[in-house]
Amino acid sequence: MLKLYSFWRSSSAYRVRIALNLKGLDYLIEPVHLMHEGGQQFRREYRSLNPQAMVPLLIDGELRISQSLAILDYLEALAPQPPLLPAQAALRAQVLEACLTIVSDVQPLQNARVLRHLRDELAQDDERQRAWVRHWVRLGLDALETRLQARPQSRFSFGDSPGFADCCLVPQLYSARRFGCELTRWPRLTEIESACQTLPAFVHAQPSHQPDAPKLA
Amino acid sequence: MLKLYSFWRSSSAYRVRIALNLKGLDYLIEPVHLMHEGGQQFRREYRSLNPQAMVPLLIDGELRISQSLAILDYLEALAPQPPLLPAQAALRAQVLEACLTIVSDVQPLQNARVLRHLRDELAQDDERQRAWVRHWVRLGLDALETRLQARPQSRFSFGDSPGFADCCLVPQLYSARRFGCELTRWPRLTEIESACQTLPAFVHAQPSHQPDAPKLA
Repeated sequence: MLKLYSFWRSSSAYRVRIALNLKGLDYLIEPVHLMHEGGQQFRREYRSLNPQAMVPLLIDGELRISQSLAILDYLEALAPQPPLLPAQAALRAQVLEACLTIVSDVQPLQNARVLRHLRDELAQDDERQRAWVRHWVRLGLDALETRLQARPQSRFSFGDSPGFADCCLVPQLYSARRFGCELTRWPRLTEIESACQTLPAFVHAQPSHQPDAPKLA
Repeated sequence: MLKLYSFWRSSSAYRVRIALNLKGLDYLIEPVHLMHEGGQQFRREYRSLNPQAMVPLLIDGELRISQSLAILDYLEALAPQPPLLPAQAALRAQVLEACLTIVSDVQPLQNARVLRHLRDELAQDDERQRAWVRHWVRLGLDALETRLQARPQSRFSFGDSPGFADCCLVPQLYSARRFGCELTRWPRLTEIESACQTLPAFVHAQPSHQPDAPKLA
């Protein structure tokens, strides 16, 4: 069975959980707590699996794949139905552009390792870390809102079935909320998010539904 | 003809120039100077093409594609020969993982907009900006060195012909040098770089060979 090294709150791992669910693939979650014990991702046994010491990491037999978008691409080959990426080159390029706007230009600037570095090396307190996150989230999601507003309206980001862009968008909006962004500036993105959250594949992937999420008292 | 909005020193634009050259595609370079006039990428006419106000941006007729890896994927469909991404799913995943290690986890932390923000908002001087860059470059390229060391040795990153991973690696090593990283820590990566630099496709894409590069006195 597929095994996914995941952290409940990681938006990168969240993308992969959504895609696995949309594909209807069975998988086992192996939690890696990014804050406990100085960061479980830095343990020697985990680093031997992923020298980047980050989540997510997918294990399929002998194969180990990190980087969420590489995992999504692999799942598309492993389980072609339902397709999550269009075959037509121009549309496919626009979907990947949307994904990479989040995967490259938003999330890597606001993940756990960057916030830790801002705190420990640049002496940025909690409020200044949150301001940093909001700055980069706004730049990326403002551009994405503009691009999706310009497209023919559809139920999901690129058409009437969910795909890679939705797998990236929903977790990024979760992070945006967590860091105190004002989401009313992105009416199209939040409309798509609402459509996604009607689907069990998205609901079951939510951070609060993960086995490693903190239990409410 | 294809048009590429590019900045000579941008490592993201450099990736695309290499891929265009490897595919033997004709293209016109439209320079966007990221520092002149407060940043030409922020001009209204450029933002109407790319709301992210970043380079590269590829124009193919009516189609506009930003995000270098989305452009590379598009070029693979537009001009399948020579292939730059393997068809076999497991190997393809490893190539994309290598690309994304650079495209998501290194370059976005060290590009022009982040350095400007560190300077203007976090009061980080030039030397502290360079230390920030070296930190993230080392983390990413150390992981990539480990992964490629573990593979069967080949002339390029993934086999005996160049591909997507080489398009990402060579520009990142250019940036690493520019910011004063000690490259001897990456013997495998620099060996691959040397093999790449024997090919005209890589040489012609170099920053110093661009029409918008500063002329030597």
